Amino acid sequence: MEIQISLPKQTNRDYAITIGDLPEISLPGKAAIVTNPKVAGLHLEKVLRKIEATELYVVVVPDGEEYKNMETIEFILDRLFDHRLDRKSTLVAFGGGVIGDMTGFAASIFQRGVDFIQIPTTLLAQVDASVGGKTGINNRYGKNLVGAFHQPRAVYIDTEWLKTLPSREFSAGVAEIVKMAVMFDEEFFQWLEKSDLKDEENLKEAIARSVKLKAKVVKEDEKEKGVRAVLNYGHTFAHVIENFSGYGNLLHGEAVAIGMVMANELAIKIGLFSKEEADRVKSLLKRYELPTDYEIESAERFYDTFFLDKKSHDNRITFIVPESIGHYRMVENPEKSVVVDLLRNYEKGKKS
Amino acid sequence: MEIQISLPKQTNRDYAITIGDLPEISLPGKAAIVTNPKVAGLHLEKVLRKIEATELYVVVVPDGEEYKNMETIEFILDRLFDHRLDRKSTLVAFGGGVIGDMTGFAASIFQRGVDFIQIPTTLLAQVDASVGGKTGINNRYGKNLVGAFHQPRAVYIDTEWLKTLPSREFSAGVAEIVKMAVMFDEEFFQWLEKSDLKDEENLKEAIARSVKLKAKVVKEDEKEKGVRAVLNYGHTFAHVIENFSGYGNLLHGEAVAIGMVMANELAIKIGLFSKEEADRVKSLLKRYELPTDYEIESAERFYDTFFLDKKSHDNRITFIVPESIGHYRMVENPEKSVVVDLLRNYEKGKKS
Repeated sequence: MEIQISLPKQTNRDYAITIGDLPEISLPGKAAIVTNPKVAGLHLEKVLRKIEATELYVVVVPDGEEYKNMETIEFILDRLFDHRLDRKSTLVAFGGGVIGDMTGFAASIFQRGVDFIQIPTTLLAQVDASVGGKTGINNRYGKNLVGAFHQPRAVYIDTEWLKTLPSREFSAGVAEIVKMAVMFDEEFFQWLEKSDLKDEENLKEAIARSVKLKAKVVKEDEKEKGVRAVLNYGHTFAHVIENFSGYGNLLHGEAVAIGMVMANELAIKIGLFSKEEADRVKSLLKRYELPTDYEIESAERFYDTFFLDKKSHDNRITFIVPESIGHYRMVENPEKSVVVDLLRNYEKGKKS
Repeated sequence: MEIQISLPKQTNRDYAITIGDLPEISLPGKAAIVTNPKVAGLHLEKVLRKIEATELYVVVVPDGEEYKNMETIEFILDRLFDHRLDRKSTLVAFGGGVIGDMTGFAASIFQRGVDFIQIPTTLLAQVDASVGGKTGINNRYGKNLVGAFHQPRAVYIDTEWLKTLPSREFSAGVAEIVKMAVMFDEEFFQWLEKSDLKDEENLKEAIARSVKLKAKVVKEDEKEKGVRAVLNYGHTFAHVIENFSGYGNLLHGEAVAIGMVMANELAIKIGLFSKEEADRVKSLLKRYELPTDYEIESAERFYDTFFLDKKSHDNRITFIVPESIGHYRMVENPEKSVVVDLLRNYEKGKKS
């Protein structure tokens, strides 16, 4: 005997990203703002002024990737229960990517899922974490290994917070913008080459274009089975670099910048990308003082570390590389020797 | 500036419930069976014989509601990481409701969500937990307060496991079957009155009818915003009873049986249900040796405890009661005095 269970189509999960001065936000029930001590000290006053809810709470968690774990999630959940938030309550993620990932994950499992809104305060979180619905935490096995897909109800991108952002963090965000342009939009890349993102109007424009590109990708592939993998351009190398460097020494966007340079070299080696195009990407990254070089101990060990990453199944690996600026290509299982060859150039003392 | 994010409709989440001898199950990647020591000792051999996967692991967690917590979830997740399960792996929940809830929740957050299948081994889990996609854990604030909606890929209901089920647990499952009939299907209720569920063919028929009724409700209302609340018939009272009795003294289905009797009395008091119908429900419950009476300390305190429950917002409360057998009614915020009045009959020494 077999009974077929049909489920209703999920609806009502579309949402808007608003770029500009944080508007007044009126929430229907209780709400809790989740933030960290630094962001709270600098900017919480403005947010408290703008958000209205029947009851409003502030939950402050420690700053940094090393606290992005289940213990902090339980801390957040406990505060929500203490103050009797319910299924109609809303969480507000106010901070960078770590705060967004954790608040989104807490929202996804609190009473089996409540609404959350995002007010990202770093450029990286504004362009990257604000679209896609990925939430999660790290554990001793690796990064983002536990989590959920949970879409925010709304995202508010206010560039005012960026005025207090350290310049290295600003640049790390630029790396993700460059990534989107190289993968998907040649015209956008050319615009980036001639525009200064320190100018606020240019910056808003770049954020908007980057977010729109990502939204298009996510729409096609919410759960990362196809084209969404293209967003991992530079990331396959970056994850290994981060693994070797220890979290916190290189910013994620910095590792991605190096990773894109490596991916471009792989593309050249397999006849896809031109040296001239690779140089244009590198010089755009350098303009924002992003690193484009990295010293590794052993090319072989670097290569082996790819397969510890969760994105590789059955010792297969896919590299995302540009075919030309604005066009991507997925390269499945390239010859090991080709990859190791390019990595050897990064071994100590080998790099010219 | 506002950017609209559209998300793809979720598809492919429909699934089948198979009732009958456990078939051969071939899983595409790695798999882990999550079970408890008792179920494993009695029945794991059959399951291991039937399931094929590229690699198959068994994770045994302690038995009981008191272990349905985040610590056990982390234990399960750690074993999955130890054995390098990946996004294409499948979890198999093999046990009662606790195992199903935890395995489903672990599946929902492992690498942001992997497939799971259910092989429920108690009657309660077969008729109740197999449809609806509710997963979750308890914490010190209450039951099922943290979790996710995560639909299984398939459910296999084999009544063979029930042969070793203690008779109290069998009856607890019957209580949920009675609940479905009273709420939704008068003809099914009449059939139950004249059929013995100790007969295996009758039992399969009752499971199938119960599951179909629940599937219809869930299809209309996956995330419990409307008609799905009707499944809480008897549960509003039962949660308070469980809260007072301490978990483990009364089985959930037993508390629900008492709760249905109380809800029926409330229905009578507000002029909806007849004494004769209430007696028919009570006598069906008694036939399976389910409790229909309960001694409480204080009607007032019992009433106040409703509002500690997560399902009440803003001190509002909805009771689900039968209007007649086979037809439900939601009663919002009945007069406190009416509810307390019926509860007084259960106060020590008051019950005739």
